[in-house]
Amino acid sequence: MRATVMYGAHDVRVESVPDARLVEATDALVTVTRACICGSDLWPYNAMKPSEAGNRMGHEFIGLVEAVGSAVRTVKKGDLVVAPFAWSDGTCEFCRQGLQTSCLHGGWWGGTKLDGGQGEAVRVPQADGTLVALPVGPDHALMASLLTLTDVMGTGHHAALAAKVGPGKTVAVVGDGAVGLCGVIAARRLGAERIIILGRHPDRVALAREFGATDVVGERGEAAVERVRELTGGLGAHSVLECVGLGEAMLTAVNIVRAGGAVGRVGVPQESAIPAAQPTFYKNVTIAGGPAPVRAYIAELLPDVLEGRIEPGRVFDRVTNLDGVPDGYRAMNERESIKVMIRF
Amino acid sequence: MRATVMYGAHDVRVESVPDARLVEATDALVTVTRACICGSDLWPYNAMKPSEAGNRMGHEFIGLVEAVGSAVRTVKKGDLVVAPFAWSDGTCEFCRQGLQTSCLHGGWWGGTKLDGGQGEAVRVPQADGTLVALPVGPDHALMASLLTLTDVMGTGHHAALAAKVGPGKTVAVVGDGAVGLCGVIAARRLGAERIIILGRHPDRVALAREFGATDVVGERGEAAVERVRELTGGLGAHSVLECVGLGEAMLTAVNIVRAGGAVGRVGVPQESAIPAAQPTFYKNVTIAGGPAPVRAYIAELLPDVLEGRIEPGRVFDRVTNLDGVPDGYRAMNERESIKVMIRF
Repeated sequence: MRATVMYGAHDVRVESVPDARLVEATDALVTVTRACICGSDLWPYNAMKPSEAGNRMGHEFIGLVEAVGSAVRTVKKGDLVVAPFAWSDGTCEFCRQGLQTSCLHGGWWGGTKLDGGQGEAVRVPQADGTLVALPVGPDHALMASLLTLTDVMGTGHHAALAAKVGPGKTVAVVGDGAVGLCGVIAARRLGAERIIILGRHPDRVALAREFGATDVVGERGEAAVERVRELTGGLGAHSVLECVGLGEAMLTAVNIVRAGGAVGRVGVPQESAIPAAQPTFYKNVTIAGGPAPVRAYIAELLPDVLEGRIEPGRVFDRVTNLDGVPDGYRAMNERESIKVMIRF
Repeated sequence: MRATVMYGAHDVRVESVPDARLVEATDALVTVTRACICGSDLWPYNAMKPSEAGNRMGHEFIGLVEAVGSAVRTVKKGDLVVAPFAWSDGTCEFCRQGLQTSCLHGGWWGGTKLDGGQGEAVRVPQADGTLVALPVGPDHALMASLLTLTDVMGTGHHAALAAKVGPGKTVAVVGDGAVGLCGVIAARRLGAERIIILGRHPDRVALAREFGATDVVGERGEAAVERVRELTGGLGAHSVLECVGLGEAMLTAVNIVRAGGAVGRVGVPQESAIPAAQPTFYKNVTIAGGPAPVRAYIAELLPDVLEGRIEPGRVFDRVTNLDGVPDGYRAMNERESIKVMIRF
């Protein structure tokens, strides 16, 4: 079969790899129908050291079950399934409490040992704990929004929960990428009264406004902090969603959150420490978040997608096929595209 | 009147100062009957740069109201009152939500502009929002425990709330000072199933056991992390109370918390950043806490103190008078004493 392999920074290739196949009794074999490129794929795209083996890529996909191992009970051949960006057994202590990204027997797609979503097929370990069958066909009109349940919509929702978004709250979203945009959707869905997006790409902030952002802050750094303070009567936002991961973004987040407020961080941290230990202490700020247990959120978000109440699939502004994946990385990296969908 | 003034590191003097008096209509004038020295007073005791003006000291006191300004409604001459370690108006947005340590019109005791608790009398600004009248006399047998409501018991409670302590949880307390010991009381009071104290002073860990600690870890650094992991089936503690403030203590805290768990920090941070941004992210750890709004907690904790269900006053292992305050600082700094009470 063919799949995407990254061999180093800016070196993404689509090539022949061994066919995916069942190995364990708990596996499912899934033929990918839709996948996408993630903002987090850009971290290795810019920094990966050259590797001879290469890393299989892609952690967001929907596909058809081709076969299941003898122990699999919840999905069957022919089902259209959505795969969260982490696989999980569904039965360990962490899965039972809804933190599937800390599953004791789970893990991440791709790398050197597992298939990735940016390929024709995937062996899915722990299929019962990982996959969710969808009640629609593979060409359903809402496929783009369904695909966001693999990562970005669930991640935006996680950021909003970690930041304690709720009715009447003022929310700030740091970052106008796909996750930040889904964070706006999540904040509105959870009842936020006011949603301030910090971003400077006209197409993205326009979409943020359509998703429910009430204010746009195009400044950065200290100027952005000043602007959010002005917009919030000097107090800052109750809830801040940090959807970037860079040190500067986290610093902005902790500087714009009000006393007693919370920062929900879902951008993969690129620094080894969280800044402003003292100001956040004196303000009694809560810092929470991490890899979203999107598996736990699919049941809650799926009805809203299917009934059209939220349209996270609008973050996709480009569609390509498997051969177009390397150029998709380039386009996202150069901010030509918010998020690229791959159609098989 | 006489009061404690700090002029620099290891330079604490008791001397004559201008008499406390009413200034604003919202003030109360309080004659101090009991006060104490705080572990946080040891930070300036070890690091304060020499100052000619000096800083008035003390933020934990109980006393008798001598007089009140014309606008004061909730306390009157003759009341015995307890003062939280921060004063607050009780009416601003933050006070209304129970975060009095972020009061928009409040502040901290002592320094160069206000009286401190380690003196004969105190002008209390915003008396209605700050003081709580006690239903007992100034020599009540439970005075020591009542005095902890000014700071350490409320602070231990805050750490436990920030760390999401609850029934069935495994809790680790980093630090065996008065706040850590009160953290043990708070954790037990909130239903923790298991309470691990990290400390190495035999008298303190013995008291921790009496307060409800089930396990003692005397190791430090990596060895302490390893030991807590062993005690928790490799997973770590659900809730960690960071009651020290040093970088090493925070690093221990974030390393012993389990995935999805929370660190409640109440030790005044001595470092500018929170360590382990990436491990805490991948584990979805919540970091919360700050200066405890003890004013908000007095109503909840007072009945437990008066009915003897908790005995936080046992953290006082030395009593002195005002003249003994400088030696009290020395004794606490040399770990001869857990916490010193001042009787007037």
